Amino acid sequence: MPYVHRLKVRYAETDQMGVVHHANHLVYLEEARTEYMASLGVPYGAIEATGIGLPVRRVDLRYRAPIRYEDDLEVTVAIGHLRAASVRFDYSIRKAEGGSTLLDGSVELACVSLSDRTPRVLPDELRARLEAQMESASS
Amino acid sequence: MPYVHRLKVRYAETDQMGVVHHANHLVYLEEARTEYMASLGVPYGAIEATGIGLPVRRVDLRYRAPIRYEDDLEVTVAIGHLRAASVRFDYSIRKAEGGSTLLDGSVELACVSLSDRTPRVLPDELRARLEAQMESASS
Amino acid sequence: MPYVHRLKVRYAETDQMGVVHHANHLVYLEEARTEYMASLGVPYGAIEATGIGLPVRRVDLRYRAPIRYEDDLEVTVAIGHLRAASVRFDYSIRKAEGGSTLLDGSVELACVSLSDRTPRVLPDELRARLEAQMESASS
Amino acid sequence: MPYVHRLKVRYAETDQMGVVHHANHLVYLEEARTEYMASLGVPYGAIEATGIGLPVRRVDLRYRAPIRYEDDLEVTVAIGHLRAASVRFDYSIRKAEGGSTLLDGSVELACVSLSDRTPRVLPDELRARLEAQMESASS
Repeated sequence: MPYVHRLKVRYAETDQMGVVHHANHLVYLEEARTEYMASLGVPYGAIEATGIGLPVRRVDLRYRAPIRYEDDLEVTVAIGHLRAASVRFDYSIRKAEGGSTLLDGSVELACVSLSDRTPRVLPDELRARLEAQMESASS
Repeated sequence: MPYVHRLKVRYAETDQMGVVHHANHLVYLEEARTEYMASLGVPYGAIEATGIGLPVRRVDLRYRAPIRYEDDLEVTVAIGHLRAASVRFDYSIRKAEGGSTLLDGSVELACVSLSDRTPRVLPDELRARLEAQMESASS
Repeated sequence: MPYVHRLKVRYAETDQMGVVHHANHLVYLEEARTEYMASLGVPYGAIEATGIGLPVRRVDLRYRAPIRYEDDLEVTVAIGHLRAASVRFDYSIRKAEGGSTLLDGSVELACVSLSDRTPRVLPDELRARLEAQMESASS
Repeated sequence: MPYVHRLKVRYAETDQMGVVHHANHLVYLEEARTEYMASLGVPYGAIEATGIGLPVRRVDLRYRAPIRYEDDLEVTVAIGHLRAASVRFDYSIRKAEGGSTLLDGSVELACVSLSDRTPRVLPDELRARLEAQMESASS
């Protein structure tokens, strides 16, 4: 089952077009993904504390409709692909009260050593939790 | 010929991983694209003053290597696709002193009425300048 | 009684010093103040819909201790000063679990017409609600 | 003589009020101050490389007039106060083509160890260059 994160649009996230500036959608997706990981018992901060980081290496987003100040949003996160040293999350954003998709797409993360940016396998606990999520989603 | 925009990374654009946060690359591309348009005699602000906007509708980026504080960057912009009511720009980012690609990808813009977000054809002057650029690039 | 808003620090809000970048504290204060106004029945978006805006005209902040990624924060808002065409809010930020003040200070807002930025008296409903808050605070 | 840094407002820095969001002025001041330090031969990145950081501990700003998209700005920086373990810079922002002050104020920086945030005296080279600036300003 996908994870759903709720958030409310801040004034500072708008631009003079009267809508959320397109760079901020990435911040919403990041917040949703890290809340998802925390809900699985693996907060991202704890991963970094072990010297491992998950930098973004690919972003593919379609902006389907504008998001506005004070909108209550639901960001849905699902695991798109799980590999040895990377993971892709798939997302969609809707208003909390329902309606059509405002944005969808994916963000792929590499797993690296924070000290020298060389590839690392995903931390065991994170991998185990994500695999369990994928199994329960497909069963 | 592609357009090259130079910029220098700000401290506020970094995150605790010690590199530029991945949302800020979109701001760099936006700055490069609007400087490109201004260099063609069509500043984006002048387009908005006519009631037309160019919101982002698709983003596809590959982050190939980290960008760091105080890096001097070259953002290269080329026209990827020009349609009646949309335009796609293709980008790459390198350090100004040379080296490998740090990011590449594309950003597609829709052309809309700012008052009701309905599709509009691209402004004549912008279209003419972009077509001229594409012809000179392919000749 | 002051209003307390809770929020959680986002990764994108950190910088390479490993703490929240100092510009983002202003975004936290803005979120707290607009949630406060919404709790009083006067959402800021509704004020702007009438053609009135409340731009910031003065900021005075002391950063007493760093704020970090994933910190759960409590932002306390109180009305500092209420005038005909301006209002000052006073703030402090602490961790939700308690402890010392991480930031305190004030943000003063002017009341203006959004069309031409000329001064306006504060909207009646907002003024009435803020005055009621000040009376209940001092009684 | 004060140092003058020029910059151009980015679209992403505006908000739905059609002006630069008030948090971004702090980013402009930071860019101006670090360019000033670099012009003195002491880039801020080089200071951090020695384990010393200059976090902001006080901000006092007056926003006198709105700043808009595509504005070319001049940020003027002067040394306000130089102490053993802190320094205050004073700023004003104007349009490059002249006109009245859009923002003025000050930002005070503490000098700390990056590893444990304990106070440190300012690096010798930075102090020497700043003192030389103050002497030439007052002579």
